[in-house]
Amino acid sequence: MSAENKASGQAQLAIMMHPDDNVAVIVSDGGLPAGTLVRDGLKLVEHVPQSHKVALVDLKKGDAVRRYNVTIGYALEDIVAGRWVNETLLAMPDALGLDDVPLATIKAPKLEPLEGYTFQGYRNADGSVGTRNILAITSTVQCVSGVVDFAVKRIKEELLPRFPNVDDVVALEHTYGCGVAIEAPSAPIPIRTVRNISRNPNFGNEVMVVSLGCEKLQPSRLLPAGSIMLKNEAEPDVVFLQDEKHVGFMSMIESILSMAEKHLERLNARRRETCPASALVVGMQCGGSDAFSGITANPAVGYAADLLVRAGATVMFSENTEVRDGADQLTSRAATPEVAAAIVRELAWYDDYLEAGSVDRSANTTPGNKKGGLSNIVEKAMGSIVKSGSSAIVGVLSPGEYLRDKGLTQGLIYAATPASDFICGTLQLAAGMNLHIFTTGRGTPYGLAECPVIKVATRSDLARRWHDLMDVNAGRIADGELTIEQLGWEIFQLMLDVASGRKTWAEHWKLYNALTLFNPAPVT
Amino acid sequence: MSAENKASGQAQLAIMMHPDDNVAVIVSDGGLPAGTLVRDGLKLVEHVPQSHKVALVDLKKGDAVRRYNVTIGYALEDIVAGRWVNETLLAMPDALGLDDVPLATIKAPKLEPLEGYTFQGYRNADGSVGTRNILAITSTVQCVSGVVDFAVKRIKEELLPRFPNVDDVVALEHTYGCGVAIEAPSAPIPIRTVRNISRNPNFGNEVMVVSLGCEKLQPSRLLPAGSIMLKNEAEPDVVFLQDEKHVGFMSMIESILSMAEKHLERLNARRRETCPASALVVGMQCGGSDAFSGITANPAVGYAADLLVRAGATVMFSENTEVRDGADQLTSRAATPEVAAAIVRELAWYDDYLEAGSVDRSANTTPGNKKGGLSNIVEKAMGSIVKSGSSAIVGVLSPGEYLRDKGLTQGLIYAATPASDFICGTLQLAAGMNLHIFTTGRGTPYGLAECPVIKVATRSDLARRWHDLMDVNAGRIADGELTIEQLGWEIFQLMLDVASGRKTWAEHWKLYNALTLFNPAPVT
Repeated sequence: MSAENKASGQAQLAIMMHPDDNVAVIVSDGGLPAGTLVRDGLKLVEHVPQSHKVALVDLKKGDAVRRYNVTIGYALEDIVAGRWVNETLLAMPDALGLDDVPLATIKAPKLEPLEGYTFQGYRNADGSVGTRNILAITSTVQCVSGVVDFAVKRIKEELLPRFPNVDDVVALEHTYGCGVAIEAPSAPIPIRTVRNISRNPNFGNEVMVVSLGCEKLQPSRLLPAGSIMLKNEAEPDVVFLQDEKHVGFMSMIESILSMAEKHLERLNARRRETCPASALVVGMQCGGSDAFSGITANPAVGYAADLLVRAGATVMFSENTEVRDGADQLTSRAATPEVAAAIVRELAWYDDYLEAGSVDRSANTTPGNKKGGLSNIVEKAMGSIVKSGSSAIVGVLSPGEYLRDKGLTQGLIYAATPASDFICGTLQLAAGMNLHIFTTGRGTPYGLAECPVIKVATRSDLARRWHDLMDVNAGRIADGELTIEQLGWEIFQLMLDVASGRKTWAEHWKLYNALTLFNPAPVT
Repeated sequence: MSAENKASGQAQLAIMMHPDDNVAVIVSDGGLPAGTLVRDGLKLVEHVPQSHKVALVDLKKGDAVRRYNVTIGYALEDIVAGRWVNETLLAMPDALGLDDVPLATIKAPKLEPLEGYTFQGYRNADGSVGTRNILAITSTVQCVSGVVDFAVKRIKEELLPRFPNVDDVVALEHTYGCGVAIEAPSAPIPIRTVRNISRNPNFGNEVMVVSLGCEKLQPSRLLPAGSIMLKNEAEPDVVFLQDEKHVGFMSMIESILSMAEKHLERLNARRRETCPASALVVGMQCGGSDAFSGITANPAVGYAADLLVRAGATVMFSENTEVRDGADQLTSRAATPEVAAAIVRELAWYDDYLEAGSVDRSANTTPGNKKGGLSNIVEKAMGSIVKSGSSAIVGVLSPGEYLRDKGLTQGLIYAATPASDFICGTLQLAAGMNLHIFTTGRGTPYGLAECPVIKVATRSDLARRWHDLMDVNAGRIADGELTIEQLGWEIFQLMLDVASGRKTWAEHWKLYNALTLFNPAPVT
């Protein structure tokens, strides 16, 4: 990031990310008209919209266009300085080969340990810490969802008021469980995802399951003996709707309520305790990105990621298609060659998965990304990776895996997931996330019932309009009000507050999205 | 079906489906113990559970085991008469080749037209007829689901009481719309599914959409001009959450409420009118099947299917993996060689889809099917196909297609879908289904918010225990109380009643499952 992007007390008109870049991004609301002098000697030759790129020098057809000191494309025609450089003027570079990426070549800067930061969390017997105290009801199959919804409504109305220390009751519903090829090679991904979500720290190891009875995803397959640590029992509690003891619909509801009550009693006995910041497991994600994502929100979140790592916490970043074009940046930052090899393995697997569907990583970008100034997936990826901060990558998770199963309880982790907001969030929940940071440029009302989501707006305009949906305004960086470092610290402090119980806007309105499983296997 | 399966006033102990079969299915609750004389000269040599098969003759290793006059497997060892024939004793036959199936070789029996049957429905301008009067809110992307849920709750509380002729307000939510490869070769399937569901007859051509703004599935791609017939406008009404006019979360909610109110006013002016039974578009499905499915419920539903066809209605049956082993039965019954070729095309496409995921049609059967006496997918398929009745197959739909777009407004249709209950139901909704029949042996509380679902139990035991979830007890056939024909007429009459507004048990309890899209394309 160039020295220009420091808190100046006044907004810049255009921001460049690196001194060697030959484009900069227009900052001003509404863009800037032709004739505007955006820097010494650089006048716009046409209107350039906010968050879009202007050429800083004359470019010849075929010249590399550079942002973040990376080639994001090649000029499809001559482009004079001051012209709007959008996706129609750029040829996308080929995907980076994965065979010869540098493995663990960069010694990440030694980060100073950060001591003394704490939050108020719920300690679990397995060593994890919850930021919320939630009764989760795991379901094996979509068949039971209508019944579980009915039961959850009754639990909230009739039982929850008696258990004031419990924050919420959440049905873990999904469309998996039957009508799927459960023996297919990639079926373990959705199965372990459902399993590991039920183990999320926010549910206090209180696993209860509603099963139909005849489905493919039997409770014994979902939660085999020994796969979970339970608080008070040898086995998870399971209600089978097809159990012969159930006569009449209400008997099913009573079974679920009666089991829920026992779990609520135990959950209600839990209290928040002072826990070190190292107990945080933070999932980073961006969605509805624009060109500001890589200038304001993601760098600030990246700074906060470094603070978390310094405090001994676990930080995950994800989104295969949004790191693919910076694969070399990830593999070189890996702590060991083994970690680098695992990154390559995950990204190569995803390349193959996309190719089997006759697409590639360029399928990622959206109309909104392009309107927001992101010309292609290369430019988008550079802005996305920034949110991982600068520390070494110490571990890699395959989709649906649980961090603690791999002994990962500290440092920066690459959790390999699709970039879909809902699939990524679902897989980060399965990994054991207890706090979620979500940056957005175009704006999305994203939220999860299972875990608090702090939403960071990349632009002040969005933060103003969505003042009761966005938790943080990173546009203040572009406005010259704050440095990246200042906002990074602000986000870090907010994370500790939210982890301690402060509600996010998504929680205030109860705006929650569906769990969305990643199932690369066929349905039947 | 053998002559034994007629209303006899008393239950049979074992039922055979065809005189040439060498196994029969035990009918009695709880099964029958060793020593029971189930037919003249046939004594059980071991306990055989209810709905499981008993060998009627001595079988040698390698002999064909026949049920429905079809080879459902080959004996893996010698099997004496009276022994329990379960999946462990059977080798599954290879899949039927699709290259040399008979094309339109059977002239289906000319069915006598059935005149004078009517129901009270809601006529639509496009010629379709609704069985319910529902405000549906289409969403382009999962991002908006939390907001739409919030709005629907407000609409139900604040607006719906003023519009007593409107039955319900339903959010058409899904996990598609962004983070998906929207240009992939098979992406049209999920896209047209969402589009065509919004055109379902139960929604009165009143399409309103909530869009985020930056998503891949833009409203203009979901509902291109001319793709839908609207009642009072040139274009569908769309609320864009990212629209700059929205300042604060409540302004989004107000936009949705205000648009919903206009649609509710028009929907509220609709009245039920007498419509011929030919306006019914009935989707047939089975789920949680057992060996009784093919003896009781599915044959009765098949008889009702013939009544519907005779009355000029449209009947769909589906579930690729559950007809695959009877492909020849379908192609031979096709009305024309073109229809037969379309069936082959759909089943071959599905073979390829499964193979790409390293599985085949045998991935279909569930633990519950096997417990319920269905040894493999061949046996399951024979029982599944029965629900299509005996009429000629006059048309074929690809997944997500709308019947009326292909000029299909009458007769028996093969709607090619996966067998997953939720995906099949979702695709039948997209096809234009206004009434759903669902048979189940193991029991499932399946329901759809978009369309009434009549649930038929295959066994009296299930119907007794689930007395307030099952709408019809087809077990009375096995009990000797009713013939297939009598129950077929009962189901036909019930369909007319439910189509006229009589509530199903799923509607009574509001037990509704999620829309589940079939997306064979990658996520990104």
